[in-house]
Amino acid sequence: MSLHVHKYGGTSVGTAEKIQNVAKKLVDEKNATGHDLVVVVSAMSGETNRMTDLAQLMQSAPSKKQMDVLLSTGEQVTIALLCMALEELGQAASSFTGGQVKIITDNSHSKARIEEIQTDNIQAALNDNKIVVVAGFQGVTAEGAITTLGRGGSDTTAVALAAALKADECRIYTDVDGVYTTDPRVEPKAQRLAKITFEEMLEMASLGSKILQIRSVEFAGKYNVPLRVLSTFVDGEGTLITYEDDEMEKALISGIAFNRDEAKVTLAGVPDMPGVASAILKPISEANIEIDMIVQNVAEDKTTDFTFTVHRNDYDKTLQILQNICAELGAEKVDGDNKIVKVSIVGVGMRSHAGIASQMFTALADEGINIRMISTSEIKISVVVDEKYLELAVRTLHESFGLSGE
Amino acid sequence: MSLHVHKYGGTSVGTAEKIQNVAKKLVDEKNATGHDLVVVVSAMSGETNRMTDLAQLMQSAPSKKQMDVLLSTGEQVTIALLCMALEELGQAASSFTGGQVKIITDNSHSKARIEEIQTDNIQAALNDNKIVVVAGFQGVTAEGAITTLGRGGSDTTAVALAAALKADECRIYTDVDGVYTTDPRVEPKAQRLAKITFEEMLEMASLGSKILQIRSVEFAGKYNVPLRVLSTFVDGEGTLITYEDDEMEKALISGIAFNRDEAKVTLAGVPDMPGVASAILKPISEANIEIDMIVQNVAEDKTTDFTFTVHRNDYDKTLQILQNICAELGAEKVDGDNKIVKVSIVGVGMRSHAGIASQMFTALADEGINIRMISTSEIKISVVVDEKYLELAVRTLHESFGLSGE
Repeated sequence: MSLHVHKYGGTSVGTAEKIQNVAKKLVDEKNATGHDLVVVVSAMSGETNRMTDLAQLMQSAPSKKQMDVLLSTGEQVTIALLCMALEELGQAASSFTGGQVKIITDNSHSKARIEEIQTDNIQAALNDNKIVVVAGFQGVTAEGAITTLGRGGSDTTAVALAAALKADECRIYTDVDGVYTTDPRVEPKAQRLAKITFEEMLEMASLGSKILQIRSVEFAGKYNVPLRVLSTFVDGEGTLITYEDDEMEKALISGIAFNRDEAKVTLAGVPDMPGVASAILKPISEANIEIDMIVQNVAEDKTTDFTFTVHRNDYDKTLQILQNICAELGAEKVDGDNKIVKVSIVGVGMRSHAGIASQMFTALADEGINIRMISTSEIKISVVVDEKYLELAVRTLHESFGLSGE
Repeated sequence: MSLHVHKYGGTSVGTAEKIQNVAKKLVDEKNATGHDLVVVVSAMSGETNRMTDLAQLMQSAPSKKQMDVLLSTGEQVTIALLCMALEELGQAASSFTGGQVKIITDNSHSKARIEEIQTDNIQAALNDNKIVVVAGFQGVTAEGAITTLGRGGSDTTAVALAAALKADECRIYTDVDGVYTTDPRVEPKAQRLAKITFEEMLEMASLGSKILQIRSVEFAGKYNVPLRVLSTFVDGEGTLITYEDDEMEKALISGIAFNRDEAKVTLAGVPDMPGVASAILKPISEANIEIDMIVQNVAEDKTTDFTFTVHRNDYDKTLQILQNICAELGAEKVDGDNKIVKVSIVGVGMRSHAGIASQMFTALADEGINIRMISTSEIKISVVVDEKYLELAVRTLHESFGLSGE
């Protein structure tokens, strides 16, 4: 008997009617396939904001512990309603809060990490041929305090449950019908990928394709849970996220990712000596500014240029901090640009094929697009270009690497 | 160290501002008295209806088990918000769902009965000088399923917690400032009672003074928990519900209760033989019709008249059933009147004083009020009179038994 875990997010269960649609899909699926089904649901869309607003009326900085007690009611409402809708269709169902499963977490309220999942209660309900409905996003500490897993935590719940139950597949239903070669709003020729590897998905996700919570992809990769992203509203096969197989080797590049919200800063003419990078980055990280790419060229004349990118919102603050330490470090000057974007090609295929970088740079040069920074990883090459070139760069690379189809 | 349990109902915590007021009252109380405080709260008013509406969209007859999962989120929201409001005032607080306390119940979903309350978790929080905030109305079965205690269940939670914790007083905060000698809308001279016994309160409650859930009064009486009813919105001492003491003996009658929603039906000329009463009442109870007063006169000529009262909504259905069995039982005819009301005098004092009934009947007769039925218990005398006499009867008795003050 196959076991599938499904996850429906807030927009998929946002109204009574949508919950009924999900119930119908589940019953159809069970009747058609005979699979055991475990369903993870989020709070109805809007509920979390409504409760956060109430909390803010109560306390200037609402207690994280009480926020978890408050927010976890959102998914509890959904599990009850979905079970009712299933029963109305004649399908027996059992609801479980995180605490009832039990999904044991550490006690980091609002961003707890799962430590253990007990599967006995779920397994007993499955043995009774029930559809099991689990509240996503929440757990309970060993002492019984309610916790939440943080933003996007319902995906993590689904993947962790799939791993614990050794499920055959974990399906994440969302409002897009799969992972695309790039954003179709930028390149209308973008195509849905039938398959993508965990590593590629991680690079795509961190680069702005915000379909899946990054932690859930890591988790799925670690426990080898086949993950499928598909649409709640449109029938289709979606995209399967899995380990590399022979078929995938054929594609050099799986997709073109990009990020609009970048800014770059440079500390130029820095004396090239040990400890300089750390002296530059420490005050930045102490100001809770996240750094993305870092590039440092080889030193000339015993000085070097140190460049990195930050979120555009942090640009002014970052410049300010660098001005403050510029003289202290004996650097020449601070430079910056907040009209830049990052464009990346992602693919496990590039590991075994030379010439990918050169093909990328040539394609961009042929369109007159100047590359301002380059950074590479094993399955990704990222370039920073002027903001005005974003769409042209994405379409050029999409075409150049044969992602647009025939 | 004194321990007080407080209970605030849905209208007392109906908005963010009202929750903040409750928090302020609690902090003031703690600062002024140094009492340990355990607070039981209901769902914000309106929430239960909102969720019931959602459930009804899902399932024609919503599963009681899932209704409990759904509705119990209402109180969980309130405990989180109240703890936040307390912390904002600098008062440490701990929230507990029914399951976290643990309040163990049987598995009669939607009307569960409390079997056991574990007090360790609450006691630990009190030892840390925290105000303990508990979700009313809910519990958990030994197997971990969420249950609710049924309508008015938050009062029961408060009283049961007070009993388990051996609290010095259980205070039920509501939207009235105490128990009155009668309804002030009928008799403006009605006065707040400083004290009333458990038994009197039971008679008053069942007769329509719907301030306290009857089960919670029974529970308080059984475990001898002093219960005080008082207003959330107006300062005052409220009414203490406790056991009879010397002071109370002095009052003959504590109050005048009444019920507008009665109808009476009579099966006249019924052959007087064993089993007749049961033959009449069985089909009534099988139709789920609740019977209030029953009166049967001594038989004359081997026949008797059998009269009882029902809720006015059930009047037509009851007449119909009696018509059906009239011939079957060889009775003469069916009679009825749905323009009647019940008026009762209640007081433990009447146990040791003769002449109370006679004083009551004389007072009514002096005003030309005809008594249609009479029924008595140890601490109560009820009469049925024509509906048009309700106000006059209540005021006459209120005056006659000296309840209107000097």
